[in-house]
Amino acid sequence: MLGRKLTGRLVGEGRLGNADVRALTLADVLEPAAYPHFRGEITRKIVDLSVPGTALELVASRPDVIFHLAAVVSGEAEADFSKGYRTNLDGTRLLFEAIRQTGANDSYHPRVIFASSIAVFGEPLPDVISDNFVCTPLTSYGTQKAICELLLADYSRRGFFDGIGMRLPTICIRPGLPNRAASGFFSSILREPLVGLEAVLPVSDDVRHWFASPRAGVGFLVHAACIDLTSLGTRRTLSLPGVSATVGDQLAALRRIGGDKALRLIRREPDETIKRIVENWPRTLDPKRALALGFRAESSFDEIIRAHIEDELGGVVA
Amino acid sequence: MLGRKLTGRLVGEGRLGNADVRALTLADVLEPAAYPHFRGEITRKIVDLSVPGTALELVASRPDVIFHLAAVVSGEAEADFSKGYRTNLDGTRLLFEAIRQTGANDSYHPRVIFASSIAVFGEPLPDVISDNFVCTPLTSYGTQKAICELLLADYSRRGFFDGIGMRLPTICIRPGLPNRAASGFFSSILREPLVGLEAVLPVSDDVRHWFASPRAGVGFLVHAACIDLTSLGTRRTLSLPGVSATVGDQLAALRRIGGDKALRLIRREPDETIKRIVENWPRTLDPKRALALGFRAESSFDEIIRAHIEDELGGVVA
Repeated sequence: MLGRKLTGRLVGEGRLGNADVRALTLADVLEPAAYPHFRGEITRKIVDLSVPGTALELVASRPDVIFHLAAVVSGEAEADFSKGYRTNLDGTRLLFEAIRQTGANDSYHPRVIFASSIAVFGEPLPDVISDNFVCTPLTSYGTQKAICELLLADYSRRGFFDGIGMRLPTICIRPGLPNRAASGFFSSILREPLVGLEAVLPVSDDVRHWFASPRAGVGFLVHAACIDLTSLGTRRTLSLPGVSATVGDQLAALRRIGGDKALRLIRREPDETIKRIVENWPRTLDPKRALALGFRAESSFDEIIRAHIEDELGGVVA
Repeated sequence: MLGRKLTGRLVGEGRLGNADVRALTLADVLEPAAYPHFRGEITRKIVDLSVPGTALELVASRPDVIFHLAAVVSGEAEADFSKGYRTNLDGTRLLFEAIRQTGANDSYHPRVIFASSIAVFGEPLPDVISDNFVCTPLTSYGTQKAICELLLADYSRRGFFDGIGMRLPTICIRPGLPNRAASGFFSSILREPLVGLEAVLPVSDDVRHWFASPRAGVGFLVHAACIDLTSLGTRRTLSLPGVSATVGDQLAALRRIGGDKALRLIRREPDETIKRIVENWPRTLDPKRALALGFRAESSFDEIIRAHIEDELGGVVA
């Protein structure tokens, strides 16, 4: 989802920082969208990065910037242990190795932007998580992300590429259909009522979590591609800014923007399984390093909802 | 080194906690020592754990307890990038996978004791490192250890084995010859003078670091094999207790035990490379969780030196 939005922005603007976007390679397990209006060269590939050799072929064109946003989401990585490790860990490692091997005899040294997740954190957690807090993931997905953060730092330290990892907040409001993530309801309780549809709320109003809009997410990726990373030193992954909000805060913002009729579309159906999962998630972060580097998210849930209405609903609330 | 000492203790006592040691499998890249006096069954294997299939063969005998102390040390993992990852990461992962596959259709669920390292920590560091401090290793070796800690936690959480990782302090006084670790001088400045030999000191007296004796190291491993791990929850790796001491503290203890004649055998030869490496190392830890679980190290460097004299020098100082 973020990949598509990022591509849309790169194609639309034709620029990334101070540079023209001359060529794009889009690689995904599903067929990537077409961008017939893009003036540069575009290559679309259906690939499984965990198949040896695949990453080497992808990197052969020596891209200056590589966005790595894969892959198997938390629910699926939990349900299929081997698939999660193969895709999320082996796939990433093969990509990093491909870059190292491609540049082994010359100065090839691309910027690598790796999308990590706040799923690297797990209970017991403090109310506010600092940049120095230990990663103790409670899912295989979070474990795979934390491992890739370590690999990214080591490959960067060794000079194989210029890497930056970013622990994205939970992206909300996700457009489109639910995926298998347990976090799905955080989006659907806003997305559905804004277009006159019912939505199920499986947890209580006091559940607190950490959010940013898809628009902010794309902004993070673009910013990460453009800034000087020298000040990162050897700590290559950042916790990113976001909005700390309870479900109650979300609903209050929904009411301010969509009115009581939107709120009446919420159906409360407590789900103990989702409750137990979500209770273990980070509530608030203190992303000092990312803020110092100029990363910015929304400052309220009203702003997150308005971004959704502008970007997904043509500015109109049902 | 610790593996040999641990085996010596297990063979000597014939017990591990409340259980008899009925069978031992010793696996190493070099031929393991023979223990002709051991009354149980002993199997010695020369193996490369990173060769697929090797770990499965090792685990086929379904040991109740697996000590994994490998492998390539920091200097070598830094000099040979691929070898470090192959041995320290792939070897460990293949071992964990072999246990998972061996127990896939039954209740096999061994205790796995993994030797990690304080090399998982890297500057900028606080003066005292808490159990909640982030792992940001500054070497490939430390990266590989941190990754294996994450795997250990996930495999344990998923119920494939009952794992405990332990960040061993720098083991001092290491017996025998120096290895390729940059920490070698911490041992040699005590080990050599105690037997009338010269030793080179490459850093200044105010360098502080975190230590435990080989005897304490073996004690950690045995304790980890015997205790109930329920209270670990999902955080499966512990920072272990140790002695925080400066080089000056070490030399003062050497003088108290070996006299001025021992101190005169120290030759100061500042080495900027070693100084830069060691400056980035942890100085003091606050291992609350390990202490609560009953792990104990020495309480002074005098005690560390005396353990060396008893265990390696037959109780006699030259």
